[in-house]
Amino acid sequence: MNTSRIGIVGVGRMGANMARRLKDRGFVLTAIYDVDATRAQSLAAELGAVAPTSLAALTAAADIVLTVVTDDAAMQTIFFDPTDSLLADAAGRVFLNCATLSPQMHLAVDAACARAGASALECCMASSITQAREGSLYLMIGGNRAVYEQALPVLEALSTSPRYVGEAGEAAKVKALVNMVMNINTAGLAEGLGLADALGLDLNMIREIFGQTGAASRVLVTDGEDMQNRDHTCYFSAAHAAKDSGIALALAGQTGLSLPLAAAATAQFERMQQLGLGELDKSGIAELTFLGRSARPA
Amino acid sequence: MNTSRIGIVGVGRMGANMARRLKDRGFVLTAIYDVDATRAQSLAAELGAVAPTSLAALTAAADIVLTVVTDDAAMQTIFFDPTDSLLADAAGRVFLNCATLSPQMHLAVDAACARAGASALECCMASSITQAREGSLYLMIGGNRAVYEQALPVLEALSTSPRYVGEAGEAAKVKALVNMVMNINTAGLAEGLGLADALGLDLNMIREIFGQTGAASRVLVTDGEDMQNRDHTCYFSAAHAAKDSGIALALAGQTGLSLPLAAAATAQFERMQQLGLGELDKSGIAELTFLGRSARPA
Repeated sequence: MNTSRIGIVGVGRMGANMARRLKDRGFVLTAIYDVDATRAQSLAAELGAVAPTSLAALTAAADIVLTVVTDDAAMQTIFFDPTDSLLADAAGRVFLNCATLSPQMHLAVDAACARAGASALECCMASSITQAREGSLYLMIGGNRAVYEQALPVLEALSTSPRYVGEAGEAAKVKALVNMVMNINTAGLAEGLGLADALGLDLNMIREIFGQTGAASRVLVTDGEDMQNRDHTCYFSAAHAAKDSGIALALAGQTGLSLPLAAAATAQFERMQQLGLGELDKSGIAELTFLGRSARPA
Repeated sequence: MNTSRIGIVGVGRMGANMARRLKDRGFVLTAIYDVDATRAQSLAAELGAVAPTSLAALTAAADIVLTVVTDDAAMQTIFFDPTDSLLADAAGRVFLNCATLSPQMHLAVDAACARAGASALECCMASSITQAREGSLYLMIGGNRAVYEQALPVLEALSTSPRYVGEAGEAAKVKALVNMVMNINTAGLAEGLGLADALGLDLNMIREIFGQTGAASRVLVTDGEDMQNRDHTCYFSAAHAAKDSGIALALAGQTGLSLPLAAAATAQFERMQQLGLGELDKSGIAELTFLGRSARPA
C-alpha cells in the first residue's frame, strides 16, 4: 500500500482524470489546486480531498505533487510567484511535472526544486483524456533516475509503460518532437480528406484506402472520422498543437535547422487560433481544408 | 487455367517483378516491351517471351496488356504516337494501366481505347517492389465494372485485395491523394528525426517512441530506419514523389483548395530533384533535414 500523500495542481481535462485514476488505484489524494477555485473544490469534494487556497498549503499537504498546467506561463506562476508558490517549505517533496513545456522551463523548475531541497521529474504525456482516466498514458520521463525509481508506483498507476528518456529537459524535447510530427500528420490528413471531399470521392472509402497504404497513420485512426463528421470535441486542442509545434520550431531554430513542413503545420494551427477555433480539437484543422467549411466553427 | 496471352510495356523495377509474378502464377507471358530494348530483351529471355521492336507488335501478341510506364509523357507516347502505338489493331484487347498518371491521362486513354474497340482499366498501385514480386500489391481499380470482372484473374494474381474504386479517372485521383498524404508524412518524419538528431537524442529511442504515440505512421515503419542509416536504395523515388504530389496539387488547384502542407512536401521533393537526388528513395528526403547532410547524396 502506498501511503504517500498526493497533491494535484491543475485539474483540467487531463489532471482531473489522472486524479480519479490515482484515487481508484488506492492512492491517498490529499489536496487539489486549480486557478479556477470552483473547479478545484468540485473535484476535491468528489475525491475526498481538500482544496487549499494557496499553493504553499498544497505543498504542505502532500509528499508528491503532480502539476498538470497549461503552459510555461502557468508553470512560471506556480513555481516562481514570490507571493505564493509550490516551493515554499518544499524540502523532501517530489514534483511530477506533466504539462508540455519548453525544455528550458523544465530545466529552470528542476534547478529551483533542487535549491529548495525537493526533487522534480518531467513526466511528458503523449496520450489523451481516455488514457488519463484508464491509467494507460504514454509517459516520457526526464530527470534523475533515482527520483524516477522513487516515483515509479505513481507513474505505473498512470501509465502501463513509463519510459525513462534521460536527464531533465530531454523528455520535453522528445515530447515536442512527437507532437510536431503528429501535428504535421494531422494537418496533412486534413488536406487529403479535404481534397477527396472536393473531388466528390466517398470519404469512408478514402479512409479505408489510406489505412491500407503508405498514407496510414495513427492520426488517421484517431482523427480521420472526426474530420469527416466535423466532430471536434476537444481531446487535444488546436491551441496546444500550435504551442507544441512552436516549441519544436524554436528548438529547430536553435540548431539552425529549417523545417518547412513543421512551419506549415504550425501556421495552420495558429490560423485556427486567429479564427477563434483554438479550443476545437486538433481534428478541427479540417475546418480549414474542406470546401464550404472555411473559417467556420463546427 | 488462364490462357489469355499477356504483354507488358514498361519493365522497370515494378513492371519486371509483376511480370515474374504472373509467370510464377502460370499466366502465359508472350511479349515484353520497354523503351530500353536491352532491358526488354533480357527480361523476355528470362521469362520465355518475345521482345518485339514495335508497340503494335506487342498488342498483336497479347490479349491483355499491362502498361507500367513512368508518367503521363510516356503514356502519351505508347498510346498516341502516330508512327507506332499500342492502339494499332487493338480491337478486343484489355489494357491494364498501372502507372501513376493524371486523371486526365487515364480518361484520354480510356476514350481512345473505346474508339479502338478495346477496353482499359486504371490499376493504380499503392505498394512497392517487394509487393509486386509477391503478388501483394494494393491495387485501386477505376473503369467499367464488367471489364474489372473480366480482368479479375490477372488482378488477383498481382494483389491480395484489388479494390474497385469507380469510373475511369477515379482511381488516379485516389492514388494521387494516397501519395500526397504519404509524402507529407514522409517529409514530416524526416524533419522529426532530423531535429532529434540535431538535439543529440538517440534515434532508436525516438523511433520507438514515435511508434507508440500520435507520431506513428506507416512511413515511420517503412522509411524511419532508412532515414537514420542513410540507406536510400530506391523503392519509390523522390522524383515519383514529386510527380504524384504535383498531380494532387493540380487537382487541388482545380477545386480552389489551398493545401500548404502538400505544397511544402512537394517543394522538398522537387528540391531533391534540383540537387540531383531525385533517384534516391523517398526516404532520401532526410538528406535535406539532418545537420551535416544537407544537399549531399548518401
